[in-house]
Amino acid sequence: MATKPLNKLTAGEIVQAISTGTSTAEAVARACLDRIAVREPHVEAWQFLDPDLVLKQARALDASGKIGPLQGVPVGIKDIIDTCDMPTEYGTPIHKGHRPRIDAAVVALTRRAGGLIMGKTVTTEFANRHPGKTRHPQDPTRTPGGSSSGSAAAVGDHMVPLGMGTQTTGSTIRPAAFCGCVGYRPTWGDIRCHGVMEAAGSVDTVGLIARSVDDIALYRDVLLGVAPQPLAAKIIDAPHIGFCRTPFWDQCEPATQELLEDCGAKLAKAGATVSEVVLPQEFERIDDAHRWVSSFEFARNRAWEIDHHYEMISETLRNNRLKDGLACSFEKYRESRSFLARARRIMHDVFKDFDVLLVPSASGEAPVGLNATGNASHCLIWTSTHVPCMTLPLFTGPNGLPVGAQLIAARNNDRLLFEVARWVTSKYTT
Amino acid sequence: MATKPLNKLTAGEIVQAISTGTSTAEAVARACLDRIAVREPHVEAWQFLDPDLVLKQARALDASGKIGPLQGVPVGIKDIIDTCDMPTEYGTPIHKGHRPRIDAAVVALTRRAGGLIMGKTVTTEFANRHPGKTRHPQDPTRTPGGSSSGSAAAVGDHMVPLGMGTQTTGSTIRPAAFCGCVGYRPTWGDIRCHGVMEAAGSVDTVGLIARSVDDIALYRDVLLGVAPQPLAAKIIDAPHIGFCRTPFWDQCEPATQELLEDCGAKLAKAGATVSEVVLPQEFERIDDAHRWVSSFEFARNRAWEIDHHYEMISETLRNNRLKDGLACSFEKYRESRSFLARARRIMHDVFKDFDVLLVPSASGEAPVGLNATGNASHCLIWTSTHVPCMTLPLFTGPNGLPVGAQLIAARNNDRLLFEVARWVTSKYTT
Repeated sequence: MATKPLNKLTAGEIVQAISTGTSTAEAVARACLDRIAVREPHVEAWQFLDPDLVLKQARALDASGKIGPLQGVPVGIKDIIDTCDMPTEYGTPIHKGHRPRIDAAVVALTRRAGGLIMGKTVTTEFANRHPGKTRHPQDPTRTPGGSSSGSAAAVGDHMVPLGMGTQTTGSTIRPAAFCGCVGYRPTWGDIRCHGVMEAAGSVDTVGLIARSVDDIALYRDVLLGVAPQPLAAKIIDAPHIGFCRTPFWDQCEPATQELLEDCGAKLAKAGATVSEVVLPQEFERIDDAHRWVSSFEFARNRAWEIDHHYEMISETLRNNRLKDGLACSFEKYRESRSFLARARRIMHDVFKDFDVLLVPSASGEAPVGLNATGNASHCLIWTSTHVPCMTLPLFTGPNGLPVGAQLIAARNNDRLLFEVARWVTSKYTT
Repeated sequence: MATKPLNKLTAGEIVQAISTGTSTAEAVARACLDRIAVREPHVEAWQFLDPDLVLKQARALDASGKIGPLQGVPVGIKDIIDTCDMPTEYGTPIHKGHRPRIDAAVVALTRRAGGLIMGKTVTTEFANRHPGKTRHPQDPTRTPGGSSSGSAAAVGDHMVPLGMGTQTTGSTIRPAAFCGCVGYRPTWGDIRCHGVMEAAGSVDTVGLIARSVDDIALYRDVLLGVAPQPLAAKIIDAPHIGFCRTPFWDQCEPATQELLEDCGAKLAKAGATVSEVVLPQEFERIDDAHRWVSSFEFARNRAWEIDHHYEMISETLRNNRLKDGLACSFEKYRESRSFLARARRIMHDVFKDFDVLLVPSASGEAPVGLNATGNASHCLIWTSTHVPCMTLPLFTGPNGLPVGAQLIAARNNDRLLFEVARWVTSKYTT
């Protein structure tokens, strides 16, 4: 560990270093601040970052004499999640300088575990499509993805080991994949969203971004408010993997299709049972149902901003999500919502023969251009059906940039997902 | 209408009077303020009320030249629901004087419809059990019920025609029944909770309190963000009513049991098909499952307050909901949550032969004593299974105080519930 810079350590390694006295929260924080000082002008991952506040927190953690499960681990928090000591602006000038009174439940639980809130990371406007300032860490002409743009870029660029995002369509998985991170969207409903801006409650979850599967498992337990249980030391044997082309397969770049097919073949060789899964045909309707459910809810959640500051809302948001949501009848909304409920039951049956599905995380590498955040379609089936998802940074695309492999498990099988993800990572990368 | 004091009008009557020029928002507001000035010392329904702010809003509404669906209708908002121009204190000294930046979605939608936010109504601490200062309007030695104590007392006492509450167990239906109001808990998920304090998201909903079924239907449409559709002029014929004693029937006072049985007989005579429903035996477990789901979520949602202000939390809350929630394992939580999901599917089948179920709203009249808010058990089956519920002020108990009859419909059948409620009200009270 001595040769690895502190800002490149995983969360687990940081806790280990601090608990054994090899390092301190302050030293880790300083290493991350140093990295940010060099890289932030190029990446612009942070909406708010106050080095003095970071060091004050770090010294308090060192002085506390406690060793929490995230002791001294710096975390970037997406700026739609409330913090009591930092502004929270939801990616819009409407809320410039807003200071929430209290921490969101997930932030309070992070601090309870000894986590250090590094700052607020850039989000697209209201966690929708209109991008913020962040650029891809490896290529400033490319998007980092969104809406959790800053959290993914900051973790991918070794500014912090952990980032918190959210996902309503593909807002954690996609940017995590683009930035070469492990990204995780939990089973819907497991992690409380009190103090997290609601985009569309029927599908919203918090999302986590890290550089290792074990860090995700650790942080998830912290946010569930339970004592962390490390993943089993023994890696799962011969998982059953469903290779799934999904109705959006045609939207993948050929190189991505090839990488995924090769991956499936390699995992089969390594001992997995890999077989093709074709989703029931009605899943083609999910795109449409997700669109109406999420836009109907989103438009109502933004009632105050629409009525008081409509002129400060982007054209992108006005002409897409808000326009859809305001045009959608309650009957259409409810019918779409009922369809998604049925799709969840059907999805449950899809997993009868599989531990996980292997699917694309995104169409390919992060696209060039900073006016959009990439295609989220590859996530919406899983988001809509409330199942846990994880993207793994397994591949490199034609331009040398990261491409993710996404694994999906059945609802409530989050820990099985993690165990298979470790197996896949170890088998694919050896 | 000329002989009815303005503060006793329904919301529908107020809109009618204002739209025809018979009255003004200011005149209605003044009538309500006058009523409050006389009665508030005895009832203490309001956590915040600023007459100047009320009149300023009323004059602005009168000057607007608009006639919204709730034009000039005064509404009391439970003090766990954010308002941008009034404090929101969540029933706890921890948040004394807190001023949210924006309105909750439901408050913004109320204002968009021309509603006048009268003030903030008293809630129990964090919408849990520890009571606020409010007393029963008809007997100051009795509880008004909770947690939406002030909204129910204010509507029941003719201070405002509409009150907004929330329900996680029985927090709207019970106080509405005690205070002689119509109370409504919608199908879970229909009305957005952005800006409403989350108690336990898996079961939370907004709840509405009024003095007529039509007012509830009107306000629901406003909060769905759709153009209001009046209920059908023709009242439904011969509804199919399931008379259901529930596993909590023994907790009803004998007088309540008798009133409900007589009601069932009277409705059968009036043309309803009334038959007995026995709920599947496994529903007896709902009490337990609701307890663990709601306490697990509640304890995580209060993480910030627990860590920063534990000493300001009541003994009642610490020793019950929080203690349960912190002791509950994630596995127990998840198993309880899965049980509730199964119960929802079973509940769907219960309604195959019925339009509505007829059940108790509470054990009986509001109990004597201000240290507790009454037994919520009669609501928890319906709350947990996400079905819409309505209490109607049909009965008078042995002490001359109101006793409610609760009607339950299948999920998504909210408007059918309203139509049957109108039929029941008209047949029972003639």
